[in-house]
Parts: sequence; C-alpha cells; structure tokens
Amino acid sequence: MVVNTSFDALSPLKLPTISKFKIGLCQLSVALDKNQNLMHAKNSIKVAAEQGAKLVVLPEMWNCPYSNDYFAKYAEDFDDKDASPSFSLLSEAASCHGITIVGGSMPERNNGQLYNTCCVFGPDGKLKAKHRKIHLFDTDIQGDISFKESDTFIAGDEPTIVETEMGRIGVGICHDMRFPELALLYRAKGAHMICYPGAFNMSTGELLWELVQRASLDNAALVLTCHFYFQHFRAADNQIFVATCSPSRDSTGFYKIWGHSSLVAPSGEMIATSGCEETVVVAEIDYSAIELQRHNIPLERQRRRDVYEFIDISEAEP
Amino acid sequence: MVVNTSFDALSPLKLPTISKFKIGLCQLSVALDKNQNLMHAKNSIKVAAEQGAKLVVLPEMWNCPYSNDYFAKYAEDFDDKDASPSFSLLSEAASCHGITIVGGSMPERNNGQLYNTCCVFGPDGKLKAKHRKIHLFDTDIQGDISFKESDTFIAGDEPTIVETEMGRIGVGICHDMRFPELALLYRAKGAHMICYPGAFNMSTGELLWELVQRASLDNAALVLTCHFYFQHFRAADNQIFVATCSPSRDSTGFYKIWGHSSLVAPSGEMIATSGCEETVVVAEIDYSAIELQRHNIPLERQRRRDVYEFIDISEAEP
Repeated sequence: MVVNTSFDALSPLKLPTISKFKIGLCQLSVALDKNQNLMHAKNSIKVAAEQGAKLVVLPEMWNCPYSNDYFAKYAEDFDDKDASPSFSLLSEAASCHGITIVGGSMPERNNGQLYNTCCVFGPDGKLKAKHRKIHLFDTDIQGDISFKESDTFIAGDEPTIVETEMGRIGVGICHDMRFPELALLYRAKGAHMICYPGAFNMSTGELLWELVQRASLDNAALVLTCHFYFQHFRAADNQIFVATCSPSRDSTGFYKIWGHSSLVAPSGEMIATSGCEETVVVAEIDYSAIELQRHNIPLERQRRRDVYEFIDISEAEP
Repeated sequence: MVVNTSFDALSPLKLPTISKFKIGLCQLSVALDKNQNLMHAKNSIKVAAEQGAKLVVLPEMWNCPYSNDYFAKYAEDFDDKDASPSFSLLSEAASCHGITIVGGSMPERNNGQLYNTCCVFGPDGKLKAKHRKIHLFDTDIQGDISFKESDTFIAGDEPTIVETEMGRIGVGICHDMRFPELALLYRAKGAHMICYPGAFNMSTGELLWELVQRASLDNAALVLTCHFYFQHFRAADNQIFVATCSPSRDSTGFYKIWGHSSLVAPSGEMIATSGCEETVVVAEIDYSAIELQRHNIPLERQRRRDVYEFIDISEAEP
C-alpha cells in the first residue's frame, strides 16, 4: 500500500499509464443530519463521475459537522463494515462508477481512540490506503479563534502515499498542508499529486484575509487566502499537482468555512476553483505538465542533498 | 561565525537585545561602469542609514551586470583588500554609519574559481560571514529564457546563518530562495530573518507573470509575481521575516529584472515593497511578530519530527 521509493529512483519522473484524466472535487454542504450528508456525497460523486471524473476527492469531515461536539457521535469503526455506512458508501460509489475516490475525511473510531481519517478507494471498491491526520489543528488567536482538535482526536503518525490508476497520490488533511516537510517527502517519493481534503477556515491567523480585504483585492482573494496560499506553495515548490476539497460555506460546524476547493498545477498556477457554495469542480489533470515544469526549472536536479544532509539536527551547540 | 544551534535550543524563540529596528533595502541601478555602481551603492547605503536603517541589504550583483559576459571581468579577490574596491566600500560604509550590511552579492575570484558571493559586515566594518550561492540558476525554457549560471560560477556548499546585532540572519542568493529546505534549515537554527539578495527576473517559467497579466490583477502583482511568490512561502512557512533586494529594472544585464525589493512578515503579509525603479525601501522590523505568529499557529511545536525522521532517504525499495 505504502510506496517506499528512494530519492534516486525518481529521476526521471515516471508517469502512470493514464497521465491525462479528469478530477472531481465535491464541495459538500455538511449538515447535522448524517443521512443527508451521505446522500449529498453519493449524489455529488455521481455528478462528478457523469462529467467524466476518474478521480474524485471529498472534503474533510464530509459526513460530520466540523466540531469537537460531534466527532465522537458521528465516528464509525471502519473495520466493522456493517456499522460503517460512510465507509460502505464510498466503497460502493467507487466500484459503481469505476473510479478512484480520495474520500475526504471522517471521524474514525478504532480501539477506543478517535482519528480524523481519509480512506482511499480503487475502482474495484477496495480500500487502498488510510491516512490519519498527522498534524492536528490546535490554534489560539486572541479575539479570533481558539480550537483544539487534539481535545478529541489522536494524531496519525504515518505519511500516506498511494499508487492508484490515476497516479501516485500523497494524502494530507487540512492542517497537514501547513507543513512543507510532508509535501517534500511526498515529492521525494515520486508523488504526482497531493490531495488535501480540508475544512479550511477563514481566519487562519495569517492575516491574509484581512490583507485581501484591506487592499480590496477581490480577485486576488482567489489566490491569496487561507489554504489557497499554502496550496500554491506546495505545488510550486514541489512541481506537482495539488488538489484541495472543502465543505461549503453553509456547512454546520465550529467555524466559517472558506470553501474554494481547487486544483493547482505544478507551476503554481490555479487550474480550477469554486466559490463557497455546494458544487462539484471538474477539471483536467495532465501529468506531462510536471515533466515540462521540471524541465524548465530543474529543481530536482539542482537540489543540494550534499549540502542539506551534512546538517545533523541532533547536533549540540559547539 | 556560523551558528550551529540544535533544534531543541529553539523553544522558546530567543529574541536579540535589539528586536525592533529599521531595515533598508537598496534597490540599485547596475550599469556597465563599475565605478558608477560603487558610487550608487555608497550613496544608497548613506540614504538608508540617514533614514535610520540599522541593517542594510544590497541586491545580487550590485557591482556587475548580471550576465555571464561580465562576471569574470568584474570579479574581485576579497582576500586581497587592496584589489577589492567593492569589498572595501561595504566594509567602510558599515563602520562609517555603524550599521550591519548584508552586502548583496558580487562576483568573487578565489583560487582561480568564481563564486556568486554575499558578504555580511558588522557595524565595526569587519566581515562577519560570506555566503556563496548554493543553488546556481540554470534554466532552459523554450521560447523564453535560457541561462546557465554554472557556465561561470562554482556553487558554494554551505548554508550561512550569522549572528548580528540585528538578529540571527540566514543568507541566500536569488535561486537559493526556490529551495524550501534551506529556509527550513535556517528556521531550525533559530533565524529571525532570511535575506535573499536576488536579480529576480520576470520569466521564471512559473507562468505567474502571465497569470497576473491575464487576470488583470494589477495590485495582485505585488504579491504574486516571481520572487514575491516564493518570498511569501518562506516567511509564512517558517514564521520568520524575509527580505529580498533586487537591482532596478533599468539595470544592464542578461534579462529583464523584476525589482520590487520587499520585506515580508512572519505571517506572510507584505510589510513594504518598491516599484521597479532605483530606490531605497526603509521599513520597520519588530521581531515580536515572530513570537505572536508562533503563538497563534504553533507550527514549531506541532511539527512532527517523530514522523518525518523515520524516513530514511537512502532506504531502498522493499
């Protein structure tokens, strides 16, 4: 399931058999009614598949309001298939439409612990990978937002890179995107794309939203705010595709959600995005853009592993 | 000279005695006439100092047109002070005004080799650090730009972090900014700021310039284009200050220079910037913004070294 490719195996980049295909980002409205959430997801995946999407991404917490008040109540044990309607829905949708699904995230109960977990399914409906959010979102900004995901969840401790028919995909959930190390690691392991389901909020403490408003950069909001900002970082730095998928603004939950699920190219350029409403973004991915970008700016070759690696982080002060 | 601080020594962040001061970015017009370049630099540093700047940054190749045709001709051997007017000028300017100077870069001749080198001087005029550009700028974009800095220069192989009265400063030159690893390393070693002198061009192959033009995001150009883009990445990802200093647009050289020397805060927010003309940007730095940002989003504490470090990059395919 997990691909452990050494750095050296990456040059030149190996494209998958299918290197040009459509991706669907299902920006879902998440309500208190779990059955309603499941119905929205099922319909939305169908819409994406009907528009030709071979890879479909769902939002973080698509089946449960994003709030510590609900995670435990909505959690499912994925090992107990009969008691996990959300897991079953994704598996069936994948096989029904013959597509790969990066299933956003759901609260997972396992051995008495709760995780914020993303399941990836192949077109045969089988589970291909499970990513438990590594970096839990704990923040405390006076007069703005205070939230501790770690009050409820246990953090996962494994990066997840999965070989699919639609390429080698690294998975991160929301706050995982804030850490360049994880994306660097996925790139190093030959990822063509990183998918970050995320309930991205409108006040990340970055002052970016304020910046945008103050400068009246209405259009710039599309590229500057919140996760957009970091989505561009990860794509351009690593010369890979980066997809995000968020719940819609009208979702129930702890904070105001930014929406704007989007796809960014290896150049850092935005390919497709949405507004904040419930919608399906369908966009074309062409992995040859990775090769072109890496030809133009050969960062991979220019990277100085001989320099960075002489640094011993446990090195004591001389 | 070089500070080797272990990761563990960084929490909490240690601010320098002077944590609030003015920085001056001297965006210089670089001509064929070397004496003229020296005169411009001298005057510009004076203007910055008179406006209260205690730390002054110069552009990449401030004494020499940015072109493989000129680097060798304009190079100086810094060890031979009598034959290095550029080196002497910076040293004298630093002691004359009692300021710290991050001296952009100059072509350096040493033991028959050429380097793209940044010298850092303390207020006593003494050399505090020397950074040789680690990542040479080699690019080849069909129909756009083709340039190989490595035709002339030898790359340096040491990151440079220097303890100054104005904080712990990491140094990179232009293309060094494209590599998140270097910035991560500086942050890990307790840098308060990274200074990137750079002759940033207008066609980095990122399509960003085109993107901005197409979308008519005139204002957004300030934050999106070329080095701005990456400057924001490094600042927000590492929650440190990032300063860039560029030659002005009308400089002689191989390609069209973007200009827009600027200072970005640990939040990723732009503090000050310039147009493309010759100018001096003076802006205030308050290192307490680093503490605030790290309090709001405690990335340092949330970073999962236990996770990233289990990855052995030399690990073979199982």
